[in-house]
Amino acid sequence: MRKLDKVDIQLVKILSQNSRLTYRELAELMNTTRQRIARRITKLKKLGVIKKFTIIPDLDKLGYMYAFVLVKLRVPSEVDAMISEISNVEYVKEIEKGVGRYNLIVRLLLPKDLKEAEGIINEFLQKIKNAESVEVVLISEIKKFEII
Amino acid sequence: MRKLDKVDIQLVKILSQNSRLTYRELAELMNTTRQRIARRITKLKKLGVIKKFTIIPDLDKLGYMYAFVLVKLRVPSEVDAMISEISNVEYVKEIEKGVGRYNLIVRLLLPKDLKEAEGIINEFLQKIKNAESVEVVLISEIKKFEII
Repeated sequence: MRKLDKVDIQLVKILSQNSRLTYRELAELMNTTRQRIARRITKLKKLGVIKKFTIIPDLDKLGYMYAFVLVKLRVPSEVDAMISEISNVEYVKEIEKGVGRYNLIVRLLLPKDLKEAEGIINEFLQKIKNAESVEVVLISEIKKFEII
Repeated sequence: MRKLDKVDIQLVKILSQNSRLTYRELAELMNTTRQRIARRITKLKKLGVIKKFTIIPDLDKLGYMYAFVLVKLRVPSEVDAMISEISNVEYVKEIEKGVGRYNLIVRLLLPKDLKEAEGIINEFLQKIKNAESVEVVLISEIKKFEII
């Protein structure tokens, strides 16, 4: 991959603060032309540096909550097989491989209603096999949420 | 708060897949007018349903990695005081209050270089006082990352 320069990094940071800025607005902010901005964004997408343009919503207002499932597998090499089992599950929003007390961290998107959420959690936990330990942590409040 | 309708939810989901879609594109997708789309987005921002338009970058390509710090405080009621101590720290990207094995989950943004990362982790851990247990889990790979 071609090395990213300072301007690329700056553009990524600006877009992470507001991904709806137009080429014109970005060009003004960065003291360059719309064409150059367009070209850089295309490059950053093509290189996979920008994976997605998205939003951060207020989950609570949409009727959802998150939960983390923290897993320590008995046989760490089984983690990739486990991941392919769960990666297409709609309510599984994050899957991260960890080094430390847990080797798999999964974030679930659940309805706020605890009774409904419980059903989904239990369904999910059945997919976790051969774990040394599994912790479910329900998220009651998000106090900060940034990507980068 | 006025209740969100189905169209609001649909709009939030579409924007979470691509937050750069123009009013025109959104109007076409949702079979309505640009004016109506603009009005709904303004409403969703005002209500705080959409908190931010952002991007999901490839951290690794930018030279970063994440780590989770999982904390169980000895006195759970101290969690809010702890949160205000850490919420303005630049490399603290997520702060979530948990119910379960941990009552505080924090995500740190760290340089990929482990030696540099270690210094920041140690600095951060000094801010965590009166904890029954603290776990640091380094994230070696992100296999899925969606917000909603």
